[in-house]
Amino acid sequence: MSNDQRWLAAAASLAARGRPLSRPNPAVGAIVVRDGRVISRGWTQPGGRPHAEAVALALAGEAADGATLYVSLEPCAHRSERGPACADLVCASKLARVVVGCGDPDPRTAGAGIARIRQAGIACDLLDSPECAQGLSGYLTRARHGRPEITLKLAVSLDGCIAMSNGESQWITGDSARAHTHAMRAQTDAILVGGGTLRADAPRLDVRLPGMAALSPERWVLTGGEAPEGWRVLPSPEAVQSMSHVQYLFVEGGAGAASAFLKAGLVDRLLIYRAPILIGGGRAALHDIGLNALADAHGQWRLTDRRQLGRDTLEVFARQV
Amino acid sequence: MSNDQRWLAAAASLAARGRPLSRPNPAVGAIVVRDGRVISRGWTQPGGRPHAEAVALALAGEAADGATLYVSLEPCAHRSERGPACADLVCASKLARVVVGCGDPDPRTAGAGIARIRQAGIACDLLDSPECAQGLSGYLTRARHGRPEITLKLAVSLDGCIAMSNGESQWITGDSARAHTHAMRAQTDAILVGGGTLRADAPRLDVRLPGMAALSPERWVLTGGEAPEGWRVLPSPEAVQSMSHVQYLFVEGGAGAASAFLKAGLVDRLLIYRAPILIGGGRAALHDIGLNALADAHGQWRLTDRRQLGRDTLEVFARQV
Repeated sequence: MSNDQRWLAAAASLAARGRPLSRPNPAVGAIVVRDGRVISRGWTQPGGRPHAEAVALALAGEAADGATLYVSLEPCAHRSERGPACADLVCASKLARVVVGCGDPDPRTAGAGIARIRQAGIACDLLDSPECAQGLSGYLTRARHGRPEITLKLAVSLDGCIAMSNGESQWITGDSARAHTHAMRAQTDAILVGGGTLRADAPRLDVRLPGMAALSPERWVLTGGEAPEGWRVLPSPEAVQSMSHVQYLFVEGGAGAASAFLKAGLVDRLLIYRAPILIGGGRAALHDIGLNALADAHGQWRLTDRRQLGRDTLEVFARQV
Repeated sequence: MSNDQRWLAAAASLAARGRPLSRPNPAVGAIVVRDGRVISRGWTQPGGRPHAEAVALALAGEAADGATLYVSLEPCAHRSERGPACADLVCASKLARVVVGCGDPDPRTAGAGIARIRQAGIACDLLDSPECAQGLSGYLTRARHGRPEITLKLAVSLDGCIAMSNGESQWITGDSARAHTHAMRAQTDAILVGGGTLRADAPRLDVRLPGMAALSPERWVLTGGEAPEGWRVLPSPEAVQSMSHVQYLFVEGGAGAASAFLKAGLVDRLLIYRAPILIGGGRAALHDIGLNALADAHGQWRLTDRRQLGRDTLEVFARQV
C-alpha cells in the first residue's frame, strides 16, 4: 500500500465517526498532512455540515500552506445555503496537493470538484481507495441503485435455526454478540423487521449501549398492514426506493422479511452471528428465496470478515458483484 | 510445554500413522531419544502388531542404552500369542527412562506395565499428555463407555440446509471440503448413514483419494430393516455398544440419523463443513434432538478447530464433558 493509500485509509477511518448522524450527507473524512505529519483532521458533522474538509482546513489555518489534503470523497462543487462548496475552500487555501479517495457520483459535483481545484493550480489526484469506497458504501449504493445499502442480520445456531419450534429465541447468541448488534444498529439510519416478528416479539430495536441511545435508527416494519406508533411501514422490499433519506438499512428478520429481501435481490451484506449450539427441528433462518438449482447458489457471497464474539462467531459476507 | 510434553506430542503424531489399520489395537507412537536426538521411532503396525515400542526398540538396538523412550500409551503388561509384552521388552533393554503419555485402561495392563518397568530399575514417568489422549480418543472412549468415539459430519449452507427442498444436495461444499471428508473417512473404522440416505443417494462412502482406497471403512446403515450387500445394519444408535471392534465411527447423515445419534447423546465430535451459500426453505440439517429449552443447548460444544477449505469453512466441535 502506498503512503497515499495509507492516508486515504486513515481518512476513511475518520469518516466512520460521522456515521450515521451525517445524514442526509455522506460521512466523509479529511486529513491535512505536511512532511508526513498530521496537521489537522475533520469528519462530516451531525446533520451533514460542516463538511469534513471545512473542519480540517479551519483547524489547520495557515499550517495548511504547502500541505496535502487527503479526503475520502471528492470535495463538493456546488454552492449551498448551508455552507460553502469545499472545492472553493480548497481553491482559497494554499494547499499544495489534494488526494481524493473516491469520486463523487452526485451530478452537481461528479468531477467538477476535482476540475475546479486543478484550475486553481493545486495538484489533485483521484485514487481508487477500497477503504474510502467501503466507508461510503451506503452513499454510493444510493447513487448507483437509488436505494440504501441493505444489510441482513441473522443470529443462528450451528444448524441454522433462529428459534426453537415453539418460537423460543432468547437467547441463541451471547452478550458480546448482542452488544455487537447494538453497535451495528448505531451505524445505521433505519432498521426493519417483518410484521410477524413485530407482533410476536415487539422488539425495541434501539441501541442499548452507554451513551449511544441517541443513535437509535428509525424503525420500519415490512407489512401490508398498518404500523404501530413509532414505526414506519414498508409495503414491500422493492419500496426501499422510497426511503430517500436512508443510506444504511439493517434488516433484522424474521425469516419472512429476510427471505423477501433475498428473493428480491436486495441484500448487499450478510451479518451472521452463529452460536455453538444445536437446536434441531427449530425454525429455519430462511424460507424460500427463489433458488431454482444448487449451482445458482454458488458465487453469490464473499467472506469479508470473521471474528469471535465470546463463544459466538460473526461472519460478514458481501454480495459478489 | 516441557520437553517431555513436546516429545510425547511427537509420539502422538507418529501414532496417527497407525490409524485406523492398527485395529483392534490402539494406534500408539514411540520415540527413543538420547541427548535430545531421535534414535528411532515406531508406531503400531497394521493388524496391531508389532507394537510401537517393539518397532522403536528393534530399530534402536544397542543405541537404546541409556536413552529415554517416549510412548503415547502405557506399555502393555500382558503376554500374548501375537507378540511379547512391551513392558518386558523395555525391562530387557538398557533404557534409562520411559515417559508415558497416557495410562492404559485395559485391565490386563492398567498400571502393571509401569510398575514392572520401575521394578526393573528403569525410571518411568506417567504424564498427562492431551495430544496422546486425543490420539487415542477412540480407544479411550471404548474403555470408558464401551462404544466407539462417534463423529457426526454435517455439510451445510450458511442457513443450515443440507439439501434443497427437492432433495438436490450435489454439491453444497466444494472439492477441497469433499477431499477432506475422504481423508477423515480414511481415519475411521466404520461409517454410517441413515436408511433414507442409503435409499435416496446410494452413497459409496469409500475413500476416493489416491493410494488410500484400502483405508475405506466398514459401511453401516441405521435401519430397522435389512441392509444391501456390503452393508451392516445398526438397528438403533444405542446398538453401537455391539460394534466391538470399532474405535472410530463416522456418522455422515442424513438428518434422521444425525438427529437420532444426537438425541441419544451419542455424538462426541461435530465436523461441520459450511459453504458460503444460502439455500432458503431447504432441508434442515437436523430434526428434533430432544431439546426442551434453549438454555439447555448452551455449553454442550467447544470449538476445537476451524480451517478454510477452499471457499468452505470446516469447524470441529468437541462435546463438553
